[in-house]
Amino acid sequence: MPSLTATPASALEIYDTTLRDGAQAEDVSFSVEDKLRVAQQLDALGVHFIEGGWPGANPKDIEFFRKIKTVPLRNATVVAFGSTRKASNSVRKDKNLQALVDSGTPTITLFGKSWSFQVTDALGIALAKNLELIEDSIHYLRSKNRRVFYDAEHFFDGYKANPDYALQTIRRAIAGGAERVILCDTNGGTMPWEIREICRVVKQECPVPLGIHAHNDSEMAVANSLVAVESGIVQVQGTINGIGERCGNANLCSIIPNLQLKMQRPALGDKLTHLKDVSGFVTEIANLMPNKRQPYVGDAAFAHKGGVHIHAVLKNAATYEHIDPAVVGNRRRILVSDYAGRSGLLEKVEAYGISLTKNHVKLQELVETLKERESQGYQFEGAEGSFELLMRKAMGSHRPSFQLLGFRVIVEKKQEHGLLLSEATVMVQVGNVVEHTAAVGAGPVNALDHALRKALEKFYPQLREVKLLDYKVRVLSAEKGTESKVRVLIESGDHKDKWGTVGVSENIMEASWQALADSIEYKLLLTDR
Amino acid sequence: MPSLTATPASALEIYDTTLRDGAQAEDVSFSVEDKLRVAQQLDALGVHFIEGGWPGANPKDIEFFRKIKTVPLRNATVVAFGSTRKASNSVRKDKNLQALVDSGTPTITLFGKSWSFQVTDALGIALAKNLELIEDSIHYLRSKNRRVFYDAEHFFDGYKANPDYALQTIRRAIAGGAERVILCDTNGGTMPWEIREICRVVKQECPVPLGIHAHNDSEMAVANSLVAVESGIVQVQGTINGIGERCGNANLCSIIPNLQLKMQRPALGDKLTHLKDVSGFVTEIANLMPNKRQPYVGDAAFAHKGGVHIHAVLKNAATYEHIDPAVVGNRRRILVSDYAGRSGLLEKVEAYGISLTKNHVKLQELVETLKERESQGYQFEGAEGSFELLMRKAMGSHRPSFQLLGFRVIVEKKQEHGLLLSEATVMVQVGNVVEHTAAVGAGPVNALDHALRKALEKFYPQLREVKLLDYKVRVLSAEKGTESKVRVLIESGDHKDKWGTVGVSENIMEASWQALADSIEYKLLLTDR
Repeated sequence: MPSLTATPASALEIYDTTLRDGAQAEDVSFSVEDKLRVAQQLDALGVHFIEGGWPGANPKDIEFFRKIKTVPLRNATVVAFGSTRKASNSVRKDKNLQALVDSGTPTITLFGKSWSFQVTDALGIALAKNLELIEDSIHYLRSKNRRVFYDAEHFFDGYKANPDYALQTIRRAIAGGAERVILCDTNGGTMPWEIREICRVVKQECPVPLGIHAHNDSEMAVANSLVAVESGIVQVQGTINGIGERCGNANLCSIIPNLQLKMQRPALGDKLTHLKDVSGFVTEIANLMPNKRQPYVGDAAFAHKGGVHIHAVLKNAATYEHIDPAVVGNRRRILVSDYAGRSGLLEKVEAYGISLTKNHVKLQELVETLKERESQGYQFEGAEGSFELLMRKAMGSHRPSFQLLGFRVIVEKKQEHGLLLSEATVMVQVGNVVEHTAAVGAGPVNALDHALRKALEKFYPQLREVKLLDYKVRVLSAEKGTESKVRVLIESGDHKDKWGTVGVSENIMEASWQALADSIEYKLLLTDR
Repeated sequence: MPSLTATPASALEIYDTTLRDGAQAEDVSFSVEDKLRVAQQLDALGVHFIEGGWPGANPKDIEFFRKIKTVPLRNATVVAFGSTRKASNSVRKDKNLQALVDSGTPTITLFGKSWSFQVTDALGIALAKNLELIEDSIHYLRSKNRRVFYDAEHFFDGYKANPDYALQTIRRAIAGGAERVILCDTNGGTMPWEIREICRVVKQECPVPLGIHAHNDSEMAVANSLVAVESGIVQVQGTINGIGERCGNANLCSIIPNLQLKMQRPALGDKLTHLKDVSGFVTEIANLMPNKRQPYVGDAAFAHKGGVHIHAVLKNAATYEHIDPAVVGNRRRILVSDYAGRSGLLEKVEAYGISLTKNHVKLQELVETLKERESQGYQFEGAEGSFELLMRKAMGSHRPSFQLLGFRVIVEKKQEHGLLLSEATVMVQVGNVVEHTAAVGAGPVNALDHALRKALEKFYPQLREVKLLDYKVRVLSAEKGTESKVRVLIESGDHKDKWGTVGVSENIMEASWQALADSIEYKLLLTDR
């Protein structure tokens, strides 16, 4: 059996379950590829454990555990999740336990019932039988050389209903070899003062380090997690942005900065400045609307609107900001003044090697252009390529590489279950030469992409090495139905660089065209350097 | 002067500031008419105080206070908000105090500085001077026969920095005649254990009832408010849905049910069942996206997705629900996903009035079809219309209303900055009649939508009342660039119902077609009932 962990009991462990419990959220569905990408981000952020899925319940998760083995991770331990064996199965015949063993992770989190009512009413078995399931399931996994964490499901409800039984379940988990016992507020209904009192009692009873797994049904998940830490718990489970079943899990994007900045309990070390980026990444991958009012990482978290507040913040930020936004990778926004806008922009323009003073007329023009674009729905975070082109156009230093004379895209379907034809024609001018060509594609945007490259590659052979890596569509102001504006974000790359470009229009073809054309212009700008 | 309130100190007061502090939220802007409507809803919900605005800072609010006098309110007292006088003004010459008097409300909330740093750095005046401003501003309003509540801005930060001075500010407020002292965590950075300790000290020092005004910058506003109540505070200030500056204010939609259901502290009496409606009303009026994951009142607050959860909830709801959703006017939802097993599906099928046993072959077929569709990228959460059509097809009880013979979509752009033309042709057959028609639109999907309706409306005039409410595009497996699969979700509605439909394809036109066609089929299914 593996030795007990070397982590000192006083060090905190951040245990992320975005990929398992987070995936239980309504509207969230991760592909295996999504999960691998999120896992890498979580690892870079510095979380200690990544719960990757439940291989016994979801075949997709089996593939994740197979593939994650080939992904190099620096800090994080990948954990498989599953339940204690079924009452009718032996440990060796239990599919769920076998899937956990087969997942090959050195650490496994096993959940079991700690609320007597759940044992009798949900499982429908005797209380003593459940104790057996817990102990021998854990014992079996330990015999396979795995570290086991025990998730005591519904622990707080269970303790309130039948404290003796709840404590018995965790004693048996420890007897089986569990290295951590995680107290779960599965239904999210427990108040912080109850958490404090129950954690205190369990800590006295329990010889292994404890964890907390809170849900947000009473809007208490973050508070409950921190109160548990105050009561001596060492492992905090949660998800990025708090996504999860019903109202979600405890939000690590609030818990981590609260721990580090308010409680002086180091959690991630020096990676806190990545927090906003990771939050945004998970939102994008999950294709959720970003919650701009989210504490710490939301776009409005340090946005000031009230006149009194703005006046004071410009004198001294501490008057209306509880922390420095940069510490979590966020920034201050002044909603009714362009003052901050210009200083921030100046910084950006200088980063591109252009020297301007704060009152330069070109800078003012750029501020106006950006405001105008943003009010139309453009967003330049993640579209630095388009931003640089816009800036160079405003500065008068951009020479276009080609001129569009026209395009036409046709999508045709001949019968109800027939195949579709997507065809695009493009006419462009480079110097004095007009090129007119056509191509097909998997869909209209793909066809347009093919036709445009076909037209330009003879002039600019370096375009052959450009790949489209990512294509995203977000519907803005959705209430106008199919007439709504859409924003297209494209990520492109070659052997060396990656760049993002953006387009906005009521017409998805026009928005895609803008982003495609910018992507090509940006590549040619890179080649010129 | 009016006598002290008759409210016994042990009864809680719910003080709503949606119309004042809530209006400071980014993207929120209430008209006077909006404010009057929200005030009526708040009154019907049973809140005790409605803070209507700051007449000294916003001229719009002067009109609100004038008009609200003519609106009959049953329970609530309308309150005007403002600041202590400016150091350079006498009370009689202070515009802000005069605007408060002119507002005519019998109760006024006056805020002042309780953090020494704010006095010296934001106001730029001497500490002793600030104490004078507080006392004589309140005294003046009392002389005009108004009840005064004192909002001690930044109290917790102030107490931590300089406890003596913070306590002096509230002593002077009481000397001036304040009936309540509200301790504000203005920057939202205070932890619950600090709130508890500071409230305890202040309560011993302070002869008038205390209130709490919390902000959510650390995701602690609800917890901090309840911890304050636990510590003997009687007035809780917050906003509906927690809207407010930056990350928002304490969320009354979570505080009120927590008080009533978790702490047995009656707050609204029997009006709790209106909570979800009022939450939705404010979201609509403020023109915000509803937060479906919001505790208690969100659409997902009692939505179950995990197979284990669904199985157990169908046996006994208490297994995964911390309260009965009906108590706050909400309801349970069973989501269809690859996590949900056969029990969930059976429940859904039965909800459509079809009776099947758990082992019925059709049910098994439906499970297989759903799995197949989901592996292709379909998602039926939010696409209940497509789900019902799929189910009826699997059961053999669906007769299609039309047959597609073909469509063609053309998007054409004639020059670099030229306008786009989007045109669609559609050929459909209804019974023995073939209809072939064409239409233009804002973009290709919009054109296809127009052409399809144009072709079908002569057969089914009820389609005229269908509106497309929402259109969403999600790129699946984005790494294939413009060749990626997309999922289109459409929400449609008529005067009575709303329904969602879905389509998936590598071709966005095909995916949109599927969702559009399902939307129309579903509407015709509704009409047949």
